[in-house]
Amino acid sequence: MTPRRTVVGVMGGTVVDARTREQAYRLGRLVAESGWVLLNGGRPQGVMEASARGARDAGGLTVGILYDDDREAACEALDIVIPTGLGAARNIVNVLASDVVVACRGSGGTLSEIALALRFARPLVLLDFDPGEAFLNAAGDGRWVRAATPEEAVAQVKVFLTELGRT
Amino acid sequence: MTPRRTVVGVMGGTVVDARTREQAYRLGRLVAESGWVLLNGGRPQGVMEASARGARDAGGLTVGILYDDDREAACEALDIVIPTGLGAARNIVNVLASDVVVACRGSGGTLSEIALALRFARPLVLLDFDPGEAFLNAAGDGRWVRAATPEEAVAQVKVFLTELGRT
Amino acid sequence: MTPRRTVVGVMGGTVVDARTREQAYRLGRLVAESGWVLLNGGRPQGVMEASARGARDAGGLTVGILYDDDREAACEALDIVIPTGLGAARNIVNVLASDVVVACRGSGGTLSEIALALRFARPLVLLDFDPGEAFLNAAGDGRWVRAATPEEAVAQVKVFLTELGRT
Amino acid sequence: MTPRRTVVGVMGGTVVDARTREQAYRLGRLVAESGWVLLNGGRPQGVMEASARGARDAGGLTVGILYDDDREAACEALDIVIPTGLGAARNIVNVLASDVVVACRGSGGTLSEIALALRFARPLVLLDFDPGEAFLNAAGDGRWVRAATPEEAVAQVKVFLTELGRT
Repeated sequence: MTPRRTVVGVMGGTVVDARTREQAYRLGRLVAESGWVLLNGGRPQGVMEASARGARDAGGLTVGILYDDDREAACEALDIVIPTGLGAARNIVNVLASDVVVACRGSGGTLSEIALALRFARPLVLLDFDPGEAFLNAAGDGRWVRAATPEEAVAQVKVFLTELGRT
Repeated sequence: MTPRRTVVGVMGGTVVDARTREQAYRLGRLVAESGWVLLNGGRPQGVMEASARGARDAGGLTVGILYDDDREAACEALDIVIPTGLGAARNIVNVLASDVVVACRGSGGTLSEIALALRFARPLVLLDFDPGEAFLNAAGDGRWVRAATPEEAVAQVKVFLTELGRT
Repeated sequence: MTPRRTVVGVMGGTVVDARTREQAYRLGRLVAESGWVLLNGGRPQGVMEASARGARDAGGLTVGILYDDDREAACEALDIVIPTGLGAARNIVNVLASDVVVACRGSGGTLSEIALALRFARPLVLLDFDPGEAFLNAAGDGRWVRAATPEEAVAQVKVFLTELGRT
Repeated sequence: MTPRRTVVGVMGGTVVDARTREQAYRLGRLVAESGWVLLNGGRPQGVMEASARGARDAGGLTVGILYDDDREAACEALDIVIPTGLGAARNIVNVLASDVVVACRGSGGTLSEIALALRFARPLVLLDFDPGEAFLNAAGDGRWVRAATPEEAVAQVKVFLTELGRT
């Protein structure tokens, strides 16, 4: 029996408002309390910093896949720091490494991750972020749902994981 | 004085309708006739195949940045074949290598390239493809315009290139 | 205070002899018993499979950075599976994510990781593998030492970690 | 009939002595005079700068695959500049895009490219650079030969290309 842990990827912007940071923090807590690994892009700002801190505060395991080649560019709340030096090419790694992706508010980087999640069939939860149905429907066959709160997002993640046969 | 050639990136789907393929072919011709290098993802289907063929038929120079590590996965109309084995991580290379990006109809891969173009400030022309303003406005400060035909798209590329100081 | 875990990267070939697999297994056990995270390329063969299994048998945490985009291509003994679809471009990620690199016997892929470890200043332990001083001295300023056994390798890793200020 | 151009990749260090730069310049000239595209890592130093300049002075076509995401980091003598932002992950792209690889003197980056060329079966010519047989023989089944001068290197490239069915 494989020890493989369930990984929930949390995407979102580096420059975001206080509400989004607060949601990301609560989402991180809930991911950890659910027993899942939290994975994100590892930067010390915005959604990445807040979600990692939330997960750590709840005693969870956190993994960051960095844009930079330098470990010092990571936020503090990560257990496993993976500097890549790949630049934006690491976005696809964030997506592929996630069993389910939760996207908080963000801009181009986050939207590229949403597009790739839909393209590579990673179930997607949009947390209080609406990039529009024209985009979402064009991106592929991947499934997506909306959530208004971190609690709703985590409930949706559970539904997706059950469908994937992961409990 | 640098010999650097102007590169126009043409993005778009592998599975597209006949109208989109026809537009991609004409766009490729016009890019070549304008003296620009045509760069795309190099696959032997859809927008990539058609735009490369159009550019070649007009005597232009064509470059393909492949998803695969195998040169045989390229379409035939390419002068310079660059297999990468990077998978979807090569999407950012397509964007960064382009002075201006033209996006034809596509799905998740193309949308990730649009998001990255807006994020990394590559001017973007949307050719008969509308992923919606919610997406486009969220993606970043990058500039984008719409074009209904390949002729309009090329006229817009010229405007952007003039602004960039490239003639 | 950051929770960042110390990561030891174990590199080595997919097709190796029984002695090398046995060394990799023991090395994996010792890495885990030392409290370090074991990171490797995640394939279900050779040094990757054996070292991950060793670390798991000793209750350690294991991370695999896959060549493929498919989680099913991973060996079974991994806690955290990171499919990348990057092909050989993921080799640099293996190196950058490691505080110290231990290289077991391997071929071109492993040697590229050794070269990059020396280039990017990751301390390197060569376990019963000698690619020659001409290569090692040409590769950069990075420090390397030889070890004849997994026990010696782990003792050397400890020395390097102490120098890095990690205990 | 495909228009695909033959691509010769020239690898080598950024910090090299005058003799190596001179060899790289002459190699670049000869590559261009043979009608092949010269591809390298595009940096404005060392072997990359000199080989691109040589090829350009002989009227050849030059392609640079950059480490950085910024076009301004390229050397001046390139026709096609491909910024990647991939960091050292772009080394595999240099290799895969080359029909034949010529390696001048270099350090870790160059050695990683030699290892990958041998791993991915790109024929390899070592120009006045000897990383040792222990390394070369361990790296894989790929074929390699030595050359003492740019003229010898180009003669060897011709032999390899003939074997590959490219004239």
